Amino acid sequence: MLDGRIYNFSAGPSILPESVLLKAKEQFLNYEGSGMSVLEMSHRSKVYDEIICGAVSTLREVMEVPDNYKILFLQGGATGMFAATAMNLGSRTGAADYVVSGNFSGGAYKEGKKYLKDARIAATTEADHFTRIPKQNELVLNPDADYLHVCWNNTIFGTTWKYIPETGNVPLVADMSSSILSEPVDVSRYGMIYAGVQKNLAPAGVAVVIVREDLIGNAMPITPKIWDFAEQADKNSMINTPPTYPIYFIKLVTEWIRDEVGGTKAMKALNEEKAKLLYDYLDSQNFYKTTVAGEDRSMMNVVFRTGDPDLDKEFADLSSKSGFSNLKGHRLVGGMRASIYNAMPKEGVEALIAFMDQFAKEHKRG
Amino acid sequence: MLDGRIYNFSAGPSILPESVLLKAKEQFLNYEGSGMSVLEMSHRSKVYDEIICGAVSTLREVMEVPDNYKILFLQGGATGMFAATAMNLGSRTGAADYVVSGNFSGGAYKEGKKYLKDARIAATTEADHFTRIPKQNELVLNPDADYLHVCWNNTIFGTTWKYIPETGNVPLVADMSSSILSEPVDVSRYGMIYAGVQKNLAPAGVAVVIVREDLIGNAMPITPKIWDFAEQADKNSMINTPPTYPIYFIKLVTEWIRDEVGGTKAMKALNEEKAKLLYDYLDSQNFYKTTVAGEDRSMMNVVFRTGDPDLDKEFADLSSKSGFSNLKGHRLVGGMRASIYNAMPKEGVEALIAFMDQFAKEHKRG
Repeated sequence: MLDGRIYNFSAGPSILPESVLLKAKEQFLNYEGSGMSVLEMSHRSKVYDEIICGAVSTLREVMEVPDNYKILFLQGGATGMFAATAMNLGSRTGAADYVVSGNFSGGAYKEGKKYLKDARIAATTEADHFTRIPKQNELVLNPDADYLHVCWNNTIFGTTWKYIPETGNVPLVADMSSSILSEPVDVSRYGMIYAGVQKNLAPAGVAVVIVREDLIGNAMPITPKIWDFAEQADKNSMINTPPTYPIYFIKLVTEWIRDEVGGTKAMKALNEEKAKLLYDYLDSQNFYKTTVAGEDRSMMNVVFRTGDPDLDKEFADLSSKSGFSNLKGHRLVGGMRASIYNAMPKEGVEALIAFMDQFAKEHKRG
Repeated sequence: MLDGRIYNFSAGPSILPESVLLKAKEQFLNYEGSGMSVLEMSHRSKVYDEIICGAVSTLREVMEVPDNYKILFLQGGATGMFAATAMNLGSRTGAADYVVSGNFSGGAYKEGKKYLKDARIAATTEADHFTRIPKQNELVLNPDADYLHVCWNNTIFGTTWKYIPETGNVPLVADMSSSILSEPVDVSRYGMIYAGVQKNLAPAGVAVVIVREDLIGNAMPITPKIWDFAEQADKNSMINTPPTYPIYFIKLVTEWIRDEVGGTKAMKALNEEKAKLLYDYLDSQNFYKTTVAGEDRSMMNVVFRTGDPDLDKEFADLSSKSGFSNLKGHRLVGGMRASIYNAMPKEGVEALIAFMDQFAKEHKRG
């Protein structure tokens, strides 16, 4: 890390690649000779048009998004998209299925219910405290649903889908806020993918929506203008002023993945390596516990605990003083959580493990 | 201006104060010893909490917002707030009045109609091509309306309200996107004020809502969670991840107004001085025309034209090559527009007048 900077394990907003930050800093007052900061640019200007079009095309390239999918940049975060999904995709039959595998998938279901005539829970792992993802044979699917909604990676509970659920003709909608671009995705298997950008893509303030063309154009009449997918697709996400600066970062970060990391396959290899280091360490000792089912473990958010809330607090405090930040678990579950998104270098994970091991030795019980 | 930077007359997103940009650049990689960029900070962290609370309190201080008003930072821009206003304030009688004095006030009315049982146009100056603001005696007001909505400054047409309309007991709602903080405002005269920040406050991506406490808590059931004013007020605008970076700029820009400019009175004096320079020049010659009624002229957006579309185009092209940007008028009206928001230095206006005068001499007809 650059001098004075720390390892930031925040679940979101999150660490950004340092080479991207350095580039943005260099361009901060005067972007490529334009005489102005990207922060100050008219979204209707030629210079900004190249930025937003570059963000769309590089994202399309890196994620290998097929031509029959639109890429939109909308406001409201993933929570906004909970409503927007139902409004845009839920008007055909008014029915939709939701898998509840954690906090945000539950939030999506709750928000969907506001707009849908028939929102159902296709499966939930609440009885298991969301420590696992439901299996295909646990899904009770409505063949007439307008979509099945899943949250791909459960940031708070540290679980992730490792298989793409079979839904027949029902479009699959996935909230990929905390996994987007961490690995290759076969976009053609989804009706829609969306993500708040503040974990793997950019600073907070925009949601990326990747949606199959044939699914849009039937928004409910109560859909706010800015969330009408068809109209936003038609207007290149510029019905009104878009969040221009986060979109600029989508361009920079996707270029970083393509040009410096070497694409999503290389990104996945690096993420697997980091996650393996941490899970292998956790499995090799008995001071820290992780209750997440082995096959459902997230590559992005690693949750663990000592089993003693006072000790967990001490861990959070001491780690913070030692140059690691945001290791405290989510308030819903307690314990600790290390979010190791794309931009977290391997050295950060190695340093964390060294710290954890030292802490364990100094606080061993019995 | 700093070396290489130009005078940016964009209507929004717009020029930012250079001292603010310099401070943000200095803090870019490592905010006040936190070891991270503001772009990377968890919105739930102590360091960020100070930023967002600082933005709220400095805005409250500078605008002298009374204690019985909530200040919210929401996503969706002013266009999003068109819907959110109706959803939150329009559920008592389901009736609301709109003054249509330009493009955005018309958009607010159109969006309001989606959610209101009885949306009415209280007055419109469309027949005058929006070159003026309606007078009090032209307003046909519904005494049972949940609110009267106005757009305070019409960015495209270059007009602005110079009086606060009398509405009896009906709360007045004002979209102040292109005038907020340009002058003192008696907030107590309004039920609600809102503004997209990308003109006078911060980079694009957040809308500021200032709303009287007693008006919230009755949102329509279809209100998206992120736009429920009461819930957002309760959660300090953090129902989900807020647009953290623009909010940081709200803090920096309001501090700039307070500490460097000397408050909104001083800001107004500076803005009046800049606008007077430009209007005095326009009134002193006959090469350029401005059709805006004298008493309704905007201090923020000055529209003018040569009367010859080819010459207007030449003006836009040549000014752009001469270190002035975004002087082309809005596509709806053509001609030219100089947006001279808070951050535009007086020198920028003087340089523009010199350029205009030179251009007029070189292109004089007849």
